[in-house]
Amino acid sequence: MDLPTQNPPLSEVAATAKRGGMTDASKPQGSRPEARNPRGFIDRRARDLVAERQILAAVSAVYERYGFEPLDSPAFEYADALGKFLPDADRPNEGVFALQDDPDADGNGQWMALRYDLTAPLARFAAQNWETLPKPFRRYAFGPVWRNEKPGPGRYREFVQCDADTVGSARPEADAEIIAMAAEGLEAAGVPAGGAILKINNRKLLNGLMASAGVTDEGQKLAVLRAVDKLDRLGPDGVRLLLGEGRKDESGAFTKGAGLGGGAAERVLAFTAAGAGRGDTLGQLSNVIGGSVEGDEGLAELEAIDRALVSLGVGADRAVFDPSVVRGLEYYTGAVFEAELLLGTTDERGQPVRFGSVGGGGRYDDLIARFTGERVPATGFSFGVSRLAAALRAAGRDAAVELRGPVVIIAFDEARMADYFAVAGELRAAGVPAEVYLGSSGMRAQMKYADRRLSPAAVIIGGDEFAAGTATVKDLDLGRALSAGVTDNAAWRTDRPGQVTVPRAELVATIREILDAQALAPAP
Amino acid sequence: MDLPTQNPPLSEVAATAKRGGMTDASKPQGSRPEARNPRGFIDRRARDLVAERQILAAVSAVYERYGFEPLDSPAFEYADALGKFLPDADRPNEGVFALQDDPDADGNGQWMALRYDLTAPLARFAAQNWETLPKPFRRYAFGPVWRNEKPGPGRYREFVQCDADTVGSARPEADAEIIAMAAEGLEAAGVPAGGAILKINNRKLLNGLMASAGVTDEGQKLAVLRAVDKLDRLGPDGVRLLLGEGRKDESGAFTKGAGLGGGAAERVLAFTAAGAGRGDTLGQLSNVIGGSVEGDEGLAELEAIDRALVSLGVGADRAVFDPSVVRGLEYYTGAVFEAELLLGTTDERGQPVRFGSVGGGGRYDDLIARFTGERVPATGFSFGVSRLAAALRAAGRDAAVELRGPVVIIAFDEARMADYFAVAGELRAAGVPAEVYLGSSGMRAQMKYADRRLSPAAVIIGGDEFAAGTATVKDLDLGRALSAGVTDNAAWRTDRPGQVTVPRAELVATIREILDAQALAPAP
Repeated sequence: MDLPTQNPPLSEVAATAKRGGMTDASKPQGSRPEARNPRGFIDRRARDLVAERQILAAVSAVYERYGFEPLDSPAFEYADALGKFLPDADRPNEGVFALQDDPDADGNGQWMALRYDLTAPLARFAAQNWETLPKPFRRYAFGPVWRNEKPGPGRYREFVQCDADTVGSARPEADAEIIAMAAEGLEAAGVPAGGAILKINNRKLLNGLMASAGVTDEGQKLAVLRAVDKLDRLGPDGVRLLLGEGRKDESGAFTKGAGLGGGAAERVLAFTAAGAGRGDTLGQLSNVIGGSVEGDEGLAELEAIDRALVSLGVGADRAVFDPSVVRGLEYYTGAVFEAELLLGTTDERGQPVRFGSVGGGGRYDDLIARFTGERVPATGFSFGVSRLAAALRAAGRDAAVELRGPVVIIAFDEARMADYFAVAGELRAAGVPAEVYLGSSGMRAQMKYADRRLSPAAVIIGGDEFAAGTATVKDLDLGRALSAGVTDNAAWRTDRPGQVTVPRAELVATIREILDAQALAPAP
Repeated sequence: MDLPTQNPPLSEVAATAKRGGMTDASKPQGSRPEARNPRGFIDRRARDLVAERQILAAVSAVYERYGFEPLDSPAFEYADALGKFLPDADRPNEGVFALQDDPDADGNGQWMALRYDLTAPLARFAAQNWETLPKPFRRYAFGPVWRNEKPGPGRYREFVQCDADTVGSARPEADAEIIAMAAEGLEAAGVPAGGAILKINNRKLLNGLMASAGVTDEGQKLAVLRAVDKLDRLGPDGVRLLLGEGRKDESGAFTKGAGLGGGAAERVLAFTAAGAGRGDTLGQLSNVIGGSVEGDEGLAELEAIDRALVSLGVGADRAVFDPSVVRGLEYYTGAVFEAELLLGTTDERGQPVRFGSVGGGGRYDDLIARFTGERVPATGFSFGVSRLAAALRAAGRDAAVELRGPVVIIAFDEARMADYFAVAGELRAAGVPAEVYLGSSGMRAQMKYADRRLSPAAVIIGGDEFAAGTATVKDLDLGRALSAGVTDNAAWRTDRPGQVTVPRAELVATIREILDAQALAPAP
């Protein structure tokens, strides 16, 4: 069997490049392109990548323990399947990166767009494969998503998300399980106990609230929700103004309010005043919106979620009901949740500061029906992997990510390169990352290279060592510490600090000892 | 510190979606989009993903042992930096997926394209950061690449590549190390000893050959190289025709030849006849093309590669020189290499079949100079991750990838859901993937679900069990084997085969025993 070649030989690519031209018609012939990232796109180096991989490995293990299987969908979806935008002539790229595919046999070039989240592709996949999937279908996924937005500090146009969803279960217990799993996933990723909280609400409560407050106009509903969304920032008095005529902020700018009468506004405020908790909150919410059909339905769902969370061992320290959570209302149909990081850092005035949301999700029972016409219940949770990694780093919780370079074998004697490669091979076989210096610089530059790579040690085998059958090892951590005056470890107090010469046969064992000793010491 | 929110709240997205319209203007209002993948793009499910992740984890570990650090670059590059195409009005997407970015403040919308390999982005990154990088800079990377080509069977427009490159070393030893690392990486990925071979050539030899054969016209050079490239398929006689006037194939189609005279053609054939080996091959090549300046330079490089490979422990069973390797000539400037899988499978006639190339690479000393104007030597190797996974599967070498579903706790009694969740929690805490069935179907459908998930066991706790403080466990593998008549394990020969009822307190231990026993048995 001769598999078709997936990768066209690069000769083809290069030949095409030659034809297509490596030159840029918009520049004078012979000018060089500038080496720069497209705006809003970044390179990620070892430290970031190692941290993100650790998060993804830990979270994947948790999700698999909950019975979720991995799934990967392509970067592109047809624009109509993505369901967010239809590219139009004026502005084909609003919010997404879209392009028209080459025309097919019928001459139709369809619009495709890069996925902007992992939920829309899941809905497409589930609709496409519904008949053959085990149901409920539980999958997790991670990978880049793309948003064609204005980039800003810490706000990129490509970032990694990680999602888990249960498709085909209408049970509130499916929501509870997603919530429990999200909490456990964050902890596995490195968030310490008490460092995050899942805040839960239900769209049906909000609908019930609107009904009981007499709000039926869609625009007014949105204004109410936006006011509620600002509770954290403005407090009840600020929200009261936004529910009524409007509010002037400190700069004097006026935000028009939702125009509710006093009674309706107080009703909304009483709803949000139910506070964040479990049983108590449910009781208070019941007092405010019990009686409306949808409100009662929402309450019953939250009660079932509460019971399931209890049996899953998730207490009020990890998940609470919070009526001020207003998330993705046009998208979700039932429970909604948000993961808030509480990890302590302090601002310049020494005040504790919260990170805010790192993820969220909820129930979206209508998304698959877009394709099939039949309602398929679904619920899921998504978090930003890079954002979580950044948060853990800012909170000093990324200590586990310690980047060490390889042991560097100094290319001391050009005629001895084969011996240096043999040393590197021995170290690698012993599981120790190692490399022979392959640049063209002298000894000093090679030592500087090893230092910049954060190498634990350098190996020097020059003429003396060859003659004596020995090798010299420099403990670079100790060298750094000694030169910084941090330690005066007697064992290494020779006239060449941090350096020892051993029989060649003991080289690997000596380096192992150094690595073991460094592992016990704080990172350099 | 309040980190900026990476992910805009989905409410915004959804609100925009509402504005932008979930409807497709090209279809009548209310019609539903079809759930389908864009052509040439596929979903990958658990089995494929687990296999690819195993490959990437194993190869990454090898590359890190060689001192290579991870790097990730964005999906997009500016078209001029990508250096392959300049989108033009007629056909902006030839070969790449390109789109014009939104205009910046100056009103200029630059063309961006999705990366078609991982080398072009590395060249851009290295040029951009050259001053601050430790040199030589050694990085590995993996991720999707995109090619806007006509899809075919097994040929997709998005696939995962894995690359390693050394930038800033002109030494042939750097090539040798890449070759040794590629061989070790493939073995770590699951290719058995003797299952792959690295085939090495040098562009300088080919240039020397052309010079000695009197070929100076670029078109004629290309025709010669294409003829040589067909040696495997057509043999020397077929290649001789292609080097001369041309060749008529079995269908009668005529391919025009390179138009070489008899002496020149025989010289080229003598070059390719040097065969695939190490020292012998070098000697024969020296006889054919020794004397030309570039040919001698290429030979000296291959000799240095040979010495380094020997000291790295890479013998002729893993890497050979092969003058018929013609790869990416417009792209590479020195050594070129190709990884060929020799893994045995047989075709329908019982003949052993080779998979062919899974990867390749070489030295490209001019790519970074495109940006900087200064030559920076570089060498690297790239392989197709999905293609390697497919090859290993076809060769029956993916046995390690055994997908098991979670233990399924049957939702037998609606009033006992809390107890079921507690069981699931206990199993997960013991490291056993487990889930409570959350659909709405009855017992039979639930058992079928567990079977389709390839679950090892199902847990049933009904009224009898609750009353007795017990739980019933079904060993689903044994159940499958018993019903297939494969085993008659006496311990399980009850009236309900593969089923045992144990005290509730012994449930987790019982399931552990079943899992341990299954681990010793062949996969279901």
